[in-house]
Amino acid sequence: MNIIDELVQIVGQERASHDKTVLYTYSRDASLITGMPDYVVRPVTTEEVAEIVSLAAKHRIPIVPRGIGSGLEGGCVPVHGGIVLDMRNMDKIIDIDTDSLYAIVEPGVTHANLNARLAEHGFFFAPDPASTDFCSIGGMIGTNASGMTCLKYGDTRNSVLGLEVVLPDGTVINTGSKTLKSVSGYDLTALFVGSEGTLGVITKAILKVLPQPQARATVAAYFDEIGKTGETVVAIFASGIIPAACELMDRSAIKAVNQYKPEIALPDVDGMLILNLEGSAATVAEEVAGVVNCCKKVGALDVRTASTKEETDALWAGRRSVLSSIYRLDAKKAAPNIAGDYGVPLKRIPEVLREVRRISKESGITIITYGHVGDGNLHTGMAVNLLDEKELEGAERAGDAIYEAVLKLEGTTAPEHGVGASKLRWIKEENKSSYPLMLAIKKLFDPLNIMNPGKLFET
Amino acid sequence: MNIIDELVQIVGQERASHDKTVLYTYSRDASLITGMPDYVVRPVTTEEVAEIVSLAAKHRIPIVPRGIGSGLEGGCVPVHGGIVLDMRNMDKIIDIDTDSLYAIVEPGVTHANLNARLAEHGFFFAPDPASTDFCSIGGMIGTNASGMTCLKYGDTRNSVLGLEVVLPDGTVINTGSKTLKSVSGYDLTALFVGSEGTLGVITKAILKVLPQPQARATVAAYFDEIGKTGETVVAIFASGIIPAACELMDRSAIKAVNQYKPEIALPDVDGMLILNLEGSAATVAEEVAGVVNCCKKVGALDVRTASTKEETDALWAGRRSVLSSIYRLDAKKAAPNIAGDYGVPLKRIPEVLREVRRISKESGITIITYGHVGDGNLHTGMAVNLLDEKELEGAERAGDAIYEAVLKLEGTTAPEHGVGASKLRWIKEENKSSYPLMLAIKKLFDPLNIMNPGKLFET
Repeated sequence: MNIIDELVQIVGQERASHDKTVLYTYSRDASLITGMPDYVVRPVTTEEVAEIVSLAAKHRIPIVPRGIGSGLEGGCVPVHGGIVLDMRNMDKIIDIDTDSLYAIVEPGVTHANLNARLAEHGFFFAPDPASTDFCSIGGMIGTNASGMTCLKYGDTRNSVLGLEVVLPDGTVINTGSKTLKSVSGYDLTALFVGSEGTLGVITKAILKVLPQPQARATVAAYFDEIGKTGETVVAIFASGIIPAACELMDRSAIKAVNQYKPEIALPDVDGMLILNLEGSAATVAEEVAGVVNCCKKVGALDVRTASTKEETDALWAGRRSVLSSIYRLDAKKAAPNIAGDYGVPLKRIPEVLREVRRISKESGITIITYGHVGDGNLHTGMAVNLLDEKELEGAERAGDAIYEAVLKLEGTTAPEHGVGASKLRWIKEENKSSYPLMLAIKKLFDPLNIMNPGKLFET
Repeated sequence: MNIIDELVQIVGQERASHDKTVLYTYSRDASLITGMPDYVVRPVTTEEVAEIVSLAAKHRIPIVPRGIGSGLEGGCVPVHGGIVLDMRNMDKIIDIDTDSLYAIVEPGVTHANLNARLAEHGFFFAPDPASTDFCSIGGMIGTNASGMTCLKYGDTRNSVLGLEVVLPDGTVINTGSKTLKSVSGYDLTALFVGSEGTLGVITKAILKVLPQPQARATVAAYFDEIGKTGETVVAIFASGIIPAACELMDRSAIKAVNQYKPEIALPDVDGMLILNLEGSAATVAEEVAGVVNCCKKVGALDVRTASTKEETDALWAGRRSVLSSIYRLDAKKAAPNIAGDYGVPLKRIPEVLREVRRISKESGITIITYGHVGDGNLHTGMAVNLLDEKELEGAERAGDAIYEAVLKLEGTTAPEHGVGASKLRWIKEENKSSYPLMLAIKKLFDPLNIMNPGKLFET
């Protein structure tokens, strides 16, 4: 029996395919990386996943778990072919127990759907990627996604209490528990979170959930010098305030937004901060006053606050339009994800911003900087004509220069988007001394190298 | 050259010993477990640790890292002999960078000393074990310690950004970074935290630090029925308040304290809660009102609040005296750590409290219950005559019954004190499906089984 027939035997005709047009739709994510799968399967139970993984092991062919495909680093692209496991049909919310602060879900649930269900109970799942409307919980776990609110609430790893995982030999294991803390052996849960499908397939997750904050307010502050944004962040922390979001847009990002959406009319400044404060009404009011005070002390040109939904949306409109504005800078150009995600220790923010500006100037490429400055995690956007090989090469060289600068500043080249297939060189350089141990763990879990090969590691 | 001479060659005469009287002082921690080492060494640098570990590997003898020896499960006791690495001399605070929210320390620093230094800057290291005055940061990392405040701030794992580790072959590696978040490969930091010295020796740590809260207040509430304490905790969370501490004392703990320290004069009730609220002054005032409201709604007999240091100390005096009170219940009896630490999902708290009371009644052994009810983590104390074999056996049977009940309620037998040498059976039962993988990781890291053998795993 050939492989497609074996797959059909497991999941039925409807949910297995090797049709070229179907396969093509699974050959990409939101990065430039591509790779054609040989088969696509859409399992609905853990047992099916275990059978499919066992089949892949028997035939020694790659198996690539995939959520919604919104990853930016090629994490779910089958670069060595094989079977793509489309997990979107495993989308049940199995249990919501707000008394015990957990929810149990299948990996195909989207972040927005989970939070809509939790909102009925007055609760929420805190990690908050920009892709909330479509990204799957499985994808978030695979990449240890974070987003704007991880400053206050932590990243996905901090919100996963336990997992059900199909190991590369088809064995099903459970890690962690429904308790809020445990040191019962090695923290396998933390090991699987962020492992991008290279150690096993996540088929269930116990997530920690929190009561929704009662109030939220926004502060935006505008500065004549980008370094002052970093100073302000340090001053806010030192005053004891941990914002729920603390975002930066530099001059280039402001310019891009004003060009694409002049009606937003951001002030023409060198840098701006936009922050959310969350908690009870009194807490939020007090924190708004504290943040405004810090912004003024550092010398903000202007500080604006908002608490109604309308005002808040208006203040956030600029930040929310950055990515689309980069795409519209030039009709011929796209916004490929090149050095799009980096992190530095907080006090290094002014230095890294200077470095990125230097690289932009020297390369002649417009590099737009924005992101989660509160945890030292910034994003870059470049407008590049993908058909112009020279321009693309120049952009890639600029990207390399950014990551080199980041590592010199003791930063990380993968704060939240993962490593995927696009940062293989950087993860090695960043983790010089521990890389061999990571590779040894990969070989221990997956001796046949069938689990999402070509991700995190070169082979 | 024999081993002691080789050790002296590495660290000098002063810091290596095989003198029986010296060895004896390293044969215990705060548990009943004992084991005599063959050698004791007190390294002061990572290089020395690496050389000592290499020596142990060459001779295939056990090597057991030890902090202050305050562990409750035998984690640092050399049950198979070998070399004890006394890490207390590696106690430098290498760097404090409050702008970037981190401190870099050696493992021998005590929790209290680190926090005293951080306090000079208005910052603190959040995990908060009861043993703060003497416990070492290395010990806290080894056991993933937590304590009262982890409800609000997370456990030790959540506050460790990176580590320097000497692997069992003597290689030195670095994990993590100084950035607040990273997904650059597998989370080796999380794997080493809580591994109790079975995977390597921690020689340096990058810790996340936070600004000190500006205000703190305490609420104590007294109930006629223990189950109402659990209901109150659930109501507090649902109202959006996350206390900085949320502790429980049941009838037996109250009785023990009143017997030993009648001047504290705790109300004679079935159960009490004591909570800390931390934050800005306005936040704390508001949260106090919210917590008092929840306590009253569930039907507290009395609720008391405190905000000055004096009032707060008075309210906390009872909770702080529980352990010493258990020791004084009977002059002939000690308080061995038997089933002293367990956790359950929050909504199971009333059930587990009922179970423990049933076991106490059936066994005829006074079992005192107290602990961090806010994260479902409770402690038990038993007063036992250690010279009465029958009584000790009875206590151990009662302890087994408690852990069996905990596992039936989907709880954990090791929420915060670690596994050490005393819970080998339970970690296996609790992690049925994932235990083989944990063992495989141990074998991968430490194929000669020299790193703290007999801990976590039987051999």
